[in-house]
Amino acid sequence: MIFAGLCGCAGGGRDDAGPAAGRPGWAIALHGGAGVIERSEGDEARRAHVRSLDAALRAGSERLARGGSAMDAVEIVVRMLEDDPLFNAGRGAAFTADGRHELDACVMDGKTLGCGAVAGVTTVKNPVSLARLVMQQTRHVLLARDGAEAFADSVGVERVDNAWFDTEHRRRMLEDWRSKQRADALSPGGPTPGASFGTVGAVALDREGNLAAATSTGGLTGKRFGRVGDTPIVGAGTLADNASCAVSCTGTGEEFIRHGVARDISARIKYLGRSPEQAAREVVMGTLRPDDGGVIVLGADGRIAMVFNTAGMFRAAADSTGRREVAIWNENEPLEAAR
Amino acid sequence: MIFAGLCGCAGGGRDDAGPAAGRPGWAIALHGGAGVIERSEGDEARRAHVRSLDAALRAGSERLARGGSAMDAVEIVVRMLEDDPLFNAGRGAAFTADGRHELDACVMDGKTLGCGAVAGVTTVKNPVSLARLVMQQTRHVLLARDGAEAFADSVGVERVDNAWFDTEHRRRMLEDWRSKQRADALSPGGPTPGASFGTVGAVALDREGNLAAATSTGGLTGKRFGRVGDTPIVGAGTLADNASCAVSCTGTGEEFIRHGVARDISARIKYLGRSPEQAAREVVMGTLRPDDGGVIVLGADGRIAMVFNTAGMFRAAADSTGRREVAIWNENEPLEAAR
Repeated sequence: MIFAGLCGCAGGGRDDAGPAAGRPGWAIALHGGAGVIERSEGDEARRAHVRSLDAALRAGSERLARGGSAMDAVEIVVRMLEDDPLFNAGRGAAFTADGRHELDACVMDGKTLGCGAVAGVTTVKNPVSLARLVMQQTRHVLLARDGAEAFADSVGVERVDNAWFDTEHRRRMLEDWRSKQRADALSPGGPTPGASFGTVGAVALDREGNLAAATSTGGLTGKRFGRVGDTPIVGAGTLADNASCAVSCTGTGEEFIRHGVARDISARIKYLGRSPEQAAREVVMGTLRPDDGGVIVLGADGRIAMVFNTAGMFRAAADSTGRREVAIWNENEPLEAAR
Repeated sequence: MIFAGLCGCAGGGRDDAGPAAGRPGWAIALHGGAGVIERSEGDEARRAHVRSLDAALRAGSERLARGGSAMDAVEIVVRMLEDDPLFNAGRGAAFTADGRHELDACVMDGKTLGCGAVAGVTTVKNPVSLARLVMQQTRHVLLARDGAEAFADSVGVERVDNAWFDTEHRRRMLEDWRSKQRADALSPGGPTPGASFGTVGAVALDREGNLAAATSTGGLTGKRFGRVGDTPIVGAGTLADNASCAVSCTGTGEEFIRHGVARDISARIKYLGRSPEQAAREVVMGTLRPDDGGVIVLGADGRIAMVFNTAGMFRAAADSTGRREVAIWNENEPLEAAR
């Protein structure tokens, strides 16, 4: 296994090679959220994240290499990251202000433009799979909260008690947020929401030439009022369109909604002829504010861009040409060398 | 009062005049949904709709003429249409499958790109005003269902019993839908949702050169599972951006989400140099399916486009140059002549 480093705003040299180099037979990229573990957390935390990202990358890659669909690949990857307590999606989700979990997820199929999403589900083990069922079994795109739970009842997906999503790590984040909240309860706009980093997502291109995207999140620590972020909003946090690209976003959700980040990247590719890398850079570095987050973008030609304006973004990418990369920080040195 | 006719895909000659004609000091357009009253319903129904559209147009125009902000103008217009039982928003909203009302609304400020939205509120008399409070008083964009109600409790907006939204007209639509549902309960995708037409919205340009957009709806007759349509989704049913245009949409919400209709229109103006009319036509006539709905678009230069692929769209427009139009059908003859 080779961990090649990715610079923070690069898909690496392969993107620069452009479509002239020929479309890879398949390609996949995934993220486990913008933001980083502190280097002071030490090697063990870093290694655990890399192992998780690598396992998800391998599962998605194998599915695509065997001729599986892009939609199957992104669902498999996101389910693994949802089940992984390290990331803020499924098990390991952030706590709301009242100490529970409300989960959002979205999928989109680039061939049909079929899409499905759920917001604020509380007992569905894998929200990404419920989102796919919304796409497949209803005429709707987005189901919310108690309504999404009622739909889950009707389709029979795996359910868990809300406490199943609890992790000690996220509980400490809630406690930190509560302490801070008491300090700035009177600030304009009310208490500052906590960090949202750790959202997970995947984009894939299959051997048939179809794109898909999926994103899943626990949202903000300390969120209230049924807040819906960008993850379940088609065109904000998630998009797939064979005519342009597949996108999954992570970061300050409200900014991604305001600027329609996923659709703006797609529009710049379609209307301005930008590469995935150029389009992603323009939006993440030009439109968003520093530290807002990052995106993974996979062009219809297999070019991958992973761009973020945070200190790091958990991410991984592979394709049929042998590309295989896992990275965390905004660094040029290979991860192996960083050990 | 002059009712000039608008052809279905035209902003009329003034759009063709282009920016060379000079930006009007202010401009406003509004809609009361795609779809039409049947001509067989007779003159009284038509006159009632025209009166309502004209009263809302006058209120918005007067506010803008006196130097009021675009955001104030669109809120005033949408509140009037919410309070009007003829339209599917606020009082007069469609019934859900279980005989209640769940209301969605969104506002966006083209200068700041501030935006706020609520989905599935049940006791807020004017959802558009709650959406504006989300924009003004929280760091969030979209609040859903019980969460949005809890936010409403915290800000003290006017509340009503859910039955306040009841109208006989919409109850008959629910009964028709239930009869039809029994007939096609086993169709793929489940029962067909009922018609959604009657959504209301407004776009405005104020004397300061700022755009704003607002949309409000009761959604689909017979909707279930906390379905969220395009209305509260920034970039789908609602958008305002001083760099391009303000947009409010009406129609089959899922298609407007899938194609990101409002943001795609904005992107075609920004990236392809299209006029509001051209951009709206390309998306409504080229991307959407026949009968999906329509849009009102107001360019930063004051050009208005009102484009729909349904038999009609309740709509009205005015600006500081003396333009003043109210129309329903896709017809070239003036409404006055149709009497």
